[in-house]
Amino acid sequence: MAQTETATESAPESATKPMFKRLSLIGIGLIGSSISHAVRRAGIAGDIVGCAVAPETRRRAEELGLVRKAYADPPEAVKGADLVILCTPVGAYKKIAEAIGPHLEQGAIVSDVGSVKAAPVQDIAPHMPEGVHFIAGHPIAGTEQSGPDAGFAELFDGRWCILTPGADADPAAVAKLEDFWRKLGSNVEIMSPEHHDMVLAITSHVPHLIAYNIVNTAEHLERVTDSEVIKFSAGGFRDFTRIAASDPVMWRDVFLNNKDAVLEMLGRFSEDLITLQRAIRFGDGATLERLFTEARAIRRGIIQAGQDTAQPDFGRSPARAKDGSK
Amino acid sequence: MAQTETATESAPESATKPMFKRLSLIGIGLIGSSISHAVRRAGIAGDIVGCAVAPETRRRAEELGLVRKAYADPPEAVKGADLVILCTPVGAYKKIAEAIGPHLEQGAIVSDVGSVKAAPVQDIAPHMPEGVHFIAGHPIAGTEQSGPDAGFAELFDGRWCILTPGADADPAAVAKLEDFWRKLGSNVEIMSPEHHDMVLAITSHVPHLIAYNIVNTAEHLERVTDSEVIKFSAGGFRDFTRIAASDPVMWRDVFLNNKDAVLEMLGRFSEDLITLQRAIRFGDGATLERLFTEARAIRRGIIQAGQDTAQPDFGRSPARAKDGSK
Repeated sequence: MAQTETATESAPESATKPMFKRLSLIGIGLIGSSISHAVRRAGIAGDIVGCAVAPETRRRAEELGLVRKAYADPPEAVKGADLVILCTPVGAYKKIAEAIGPHLEQGAIVSDVGSVKAAPVQDIAPHMPEGVHFIAGHPIAGTEQSGPDAGFAELFDGRWCILTPGADADPAAVAKLEDFWRKLGSNVEIMSPEHHDMVLAITSHVPHLIAYNIVNTAEHLERVTDSEVIKFSAGGFRDFTRIAASDPVMWRDVFLNNKDAVLEMLGRFSEDLITLQRAIRFGDGATLERLFTEARAIRRGIIQAGQDTAQPDFGRSPARAKDGSK
Repeated sequence: MAQTETATESAPESATKPMFKRLSLIGIGLIGSSISHAVRRAGIAGDIVGCAVAPETRRRAEELGLVRKAYADPPEAVKGADLVILCTPVGAYKKIAEAIGPHLEQGAIVSDVGSVKAAPVQDIAPHMPEGVHFIAGHPIAGTEQSGPDAGFAELFDGRWCILTPGADADPAAVAKLEDFWRKLGSNVEIMSPEHHDMVLAITSHVPHLIAYNIVNTAEHLERVTDSEVIKFSAGGFRDFTRIAASDPVMWRDVFLNNKDAVLEMLGRFSEDLITLQRAIRFGDGATLERLFTEARAIRRGIIQAGQDTAQPDFGRSPARAKDGSK
């Protein structure tokens, strides 16, 4: 009985007062548009506006209902917003932060979705006025596609979002942003920007770099044609081309902004590759078999943690239908 | 009317005389079991027998109906077979070829499915008696799973099978084996063993090697835990772990048997990676963006050629359902 009363009392408030009165998305590509879908699914913003450089992106974002209004000018887009999320390549942060700083509303939360944290935090933080809560973030989710049409509400479901608040961040604002990401379907973890950049260097940045690299190597062979590479890509190569189809500008900015951690991880990768190369050269089958066997365990961990499908070949082959019907 | 008569006349023959009277699968793992499924789907073998070292594999292969009888001994398994396909790791070929040679039926076709061709051909060919047609083959298809339970009939649909017949191969036998693979759903291409090994080094062997390698690098970091690697693997890393979950013994044998081509391609890969590494170190964004942009084109080629799905994230994410319903 008491529970029913409480529910009745709080219902009007939750129905009329969403978590944020206005969300402003600075950049409306894959991640910006997915946030819009997920926010509308959760019903946690009263209004969504956005900002994009390209007129075509603005037109499309309004047409798809991703934003009520898409502005060309960042300061216009942040007016009256109590949550502002930068969803552009990280190389654009400094200029945007300078531009929007004076126009941010008191008490607003400013965040981002960039794949690098330490350097970009330095680009944004100095331009944030007193009374505005800047808390950097990074949802570990995406596809190889780009642009406002690429987004979908389920992108963040079951994935992790990392927040890297500064030491002086307001705990209530951090808790609110955590809650926001959970309502979008994510798990949330807090860490320092520096640790984030080290973790992502190995789980995302170096994998993308070596995927881009092997595709380039394959394209520049004299004795194997591009047509052969394409035809026989199902032997493993095609998996790398998916990642290598990701947005080049976004990834350029990632590598320019996470230089030290990427170079460290790349050094490790090359050392380890030389060990394998030597084992091949000298016919050391025992070393090859041992290292290949060790690599299997982490795949099991990823599937158990719900971070990838257990279906063979990512469920991509026709056997998917058979397995799916079980 | 004439057509109807022809169909009636030929029906009894095609119903009673399949393409091969007895298929013998030496090795009943992912590929061997998939051949059995696809052969039964096509109805092109009167009888299927097999051979496996492990008693559990033999029991399971019979239980699943993959073979009428699974033998422990290769010579027993090839008796009366007019098509024998080696489906073991390539390191086992020499011993098997020696053992089965004297027991092969006159006119039989002997083939294989190994991922390397030049060296394994040398292991098999000397043991093939006069009147037996040895034609090496390699279906470019697979998943990360192993064993008799992993197979399915659709594995070869739309994929390419490469045959590498010797200069003195009987054209009729080559044509028959081509027809066999087409009936299993494959496209077929003929090339030399040496060219095959060069093409596969870049489209399959080096991709697997660098996938194994980055997983090993990630596992041996001091400052990033395995648990973090697993949690945040959706940033790209998880794609590599799928390939790195492939059978270690099969892959050990691939690298031991395709040393020269793999070392050449690995040298190219490392040269190219150093170019990217330098661009990162010196903040050369223009080079990074150019190389990343070039890598996108080959993905489009692969999708247009039907060698991978156009769905984002391999159709792995929940958006798949949305796209699939279109």
